[in-house]
Amino acid sequence: VSRRAELIAIGSELLGWSRHDTNGSYLARRLGERGIPVCFRTIVGDDPADLRAAFAVALGRAEVIIATGGLGPTVDDLTREAVAGLLDLPLDDDAALLRGIEERFRRHGLTMPPSNRRQAQVPRGAEVLPNSVGTAPGLVLRQGARLVVLLPGVPGEMERMVEEGVLPRLEAADEVLATRVLKIAGLTESETDRRLAEVHAGAGDVEWTILASPGQIEIHLRERVRAGAGPLGIDRLDRAIEAILGEHLFGRDDETIESTIGRLARAAGATAAVAESVTGGGVAARLTSTPGASRWFRGGAVAYSDDAKVALAGVDPGILARDGPVSEPVAAGMALGIRARLGATWGLAATGYAGPEGGGPDRPPGTVVLGLAGPGVTTTRALRLPGPRAIVQQRAVMAALDLLRRGLLGRSA
Amino acid sequence: VSRRAELIAIGSELLGWSRHDTNGSYLARRLGERGIPVCFRTIVGDDPADLRAAFAVALGRAEVIIATGGLGPTVDDLTREAVAGLLDLPLDDDAALLRGIEERFRRHGLTMPPSNRRQAQVPRGAEVLPNSVGTAPGLVLRQGARLVVLLPGVPGEMERMVEEGVLPRLEAADEVLATRVLKIAGLTESETDRRLAEVHAGAGDVEWTILASPGQIEIHLRERVRAGAGPLGIDRLDRAIEAILGEHLFGRDDETIESTIGRLARAAGATAAVAESVTGGGVAARLTSTPGASRWFRGGAVAYSDDAKVALAGVDPGILARDGPVSEPVAAGMALGIRARLGATWGLAATGYAGPEGGGPDRPPGTVVLGLAGPGVTTTRALRLPGPRAIVQQRAVMAALDLLRRGLLGRSA
Repeated sequence: VSRRAELIAIGSELLGWSRHDTNGSYLARRLGERGIPVCFRTIVGDDPADLRAAFAVALGRAEVIIATGGLGPTVDDLTREAVAGLLDLPLDDDAALLRGIEERFRRHGLTMPPSNRRQAQVPRGAEVLPNSVGTAPGLVLRQGARLVVLLPGVPGEMERMVEEGVLPRLEAADEVLATRVLKIAGLTESETDRRLAEVHAGAGDVEWTILASPGQIEIHLRERVRAGAGPLGIDRLDRAIEAILGEHLFGRDDETIESTIGRLARAAGATAAVAESVTGGGVAARLTSTPGASRWFRGGAVAYSDDAKVALAGVDPGILARDGPVSEPVAAGMALGIRARLGATWGLAATGYAGPEGGGPDRPPGTVVLGLAGPGVTTTRALRLPGPRAIVQQRAVMAALDLLRRGLLGRSA
Repeated sequence: VSRRAELIAIGSELLGWSRHDTNGSYLARRLGERGIPVCFRTIVGDDPADLRAAFAVALGRAEVIIATGGLGPTVDDLTREAVAGLLDLPLDDDAALLRGIEERFRRHGLTMPPSNRRQAQVPRGAEVLPNSVGTAPGLVLRQGARLVVLLPGVPGEMERMVEEGVLPRLEAADEVLATRVLKIAGLTESETDRRLAEVHAGAGDVEWTILASPGQIEIHLRERVRAGAGPLGIDRLDRAIEAILGEHLFGRDDETIESTIGRLARAAGATAAVAESVTGGGVAARLTSTPGASRWFRGGAVAYSDDAKVALAGVDPGILARDGPVSEPVAAGMALGIRARLGATWGLAATGYAGPEGGGPDRPPGTVVLGLAGPGVTTTRALRLPGPRAIVQQRAVMAALDLLRRGLLGRSA
């Protein structure tokens, strides 16, 4: 029989606008991989009555309930009391737990504050999940076929407890959820939709979600498969999508466009350098976010002013004066200049107007020109990117990275 | 009497790990400003029974219920049917709505697909919120004192409906929630806590939350005040915090460290240039994320390789060979070099090892050296930053920006 999970995220700050429940995202992924779908996620504040209400509702509609937060030592930490009260369980002092918490403080040269004593209280019958990195222990309660797990809200502590204590208690289901993410550049969402309409229509039992972010489209595939069996439906769709989209498909799952570039560059023994204005360092920042980037990334110029385009990227001042900073000759000059100056195999350039200001009627905000210089090739590409400043910058970064990726593909093919 | 809200976010993709409910964050903020606290947030997938369960629970514990998503034309869009079924309301065809949707397609040169016809169905007695930017109308149902609002999940459509249709229907409460965010750099969370312990203890009715992100601490203050009155408690705490933290307090609410830098630079008529290796373009990207950055930001060098430190930032190769790339002389050389090369008032530099690789036993991953060169001053600062690669990079970006901010404060003071 299939079990369903509800996640409860506890903390008034999570109800507001400044924090997302990232713990829930992590838990949803790990449970999904065990074949346990998350059907509800509830966020509730530090209010005793609301907390009890949230747990009462969850007990009525889910078999696995995992709550995060509210196990700390402060007066706002009420999860333990709320659940014990709801299930009518007394809270017992756990002597071993108390010694462990006291010992933890002693190791750091501190005396345990009296408030931490509450963290050694355990609803009668609950199992304790030790916390190897903090003071709040986790708690596991069984209510008939139902499992209620209380975890601390600190992500590092919570994740460790899940891996060591919670997942082993969730005996694997007969079915597990296989997932795959396909990542696409250089196409709009509607164009991707159009090209894949027939494949999508034949997806059968594979769940299909398309997600768009500036400059990147993702197709998320999910398929229930028997434990130990392969995701045959996903594999079939993956092949069909690749056949249609070709080089637009740049990666899968945890791959990013920058990790793909790094892989291609290392395979080809190639290096890259960047000269960018409109993206303001964003292209370089993405490339250097991957470990080992120093092996193939030579460096870059953030040529934001005209002077910087000349001084750092070696653009000819005459061309700059004649064609203006956002033009194909300047983009080519930046790519060639930075390539020569840093002795790189590939020089990549981006210039443009992110907005709100533009460059006159024929060069409105969103006008971006990319340049790529490599062995025997120099290309430019003029784009008109929609959206406000931050979105134009993100789209321009993705378009520039994709241009470099395609250059590397041509070389390494 | 005070009303409480529940937000319901609808869509199976929101249950998983790849999407956050940003609509809920927006709604929580706008409702909070009207004095209506959000007490529960529920996320539920595209399952008819689960949808009904989620609305049934919400009707039992909240007076204002706002749901987002599930109003589109596809078979997965079930919100309308679930709520009509739960409240036992027939769905009527709304002729005016249907004409509007057909007209919308016609304007784009298209014929309305039959599936969109469902979007013109209205639970009997519901008010329609017109959608000026998409096809899915919003719906408002009154159940006694309860208000149930169904909105599309597309953020742009949802936000417009909230501003034009929902907020005007929520007559302002006697009390509203005043909020303020204070932003702090250069202190750890525990050091901030320690310094502000006494102020925090005297916060009275002002809710106090401290949030830490790499290199930045925020204090979120919330206070219920009578409509039209000022947030006296928040103002008092703000003054007390500023008196204690001084220059560590760099901004409030929507201010960022980069917008503060831009304001200080413009006020002083100063310009800035950056040479960075360990942060890989991240410092420049942050500085250029603010509109109008071109007025005071000259440009930067992403001097990732030793060659680039010489070629772009003008570092003396002899110093580089003698002291190594992560050293105070090289950080100073990068700051002075980029300042001279781009003719900027201030030159800012960051070099270091983000990890996983370091520079030998005395320079482990997380070793970062910053440099700042300005009129008559050159300073360096060596740091040992904790965390994995991405966190070290974020902390280094914040520390570098804070160093520049302090330089500008000294000049403009």
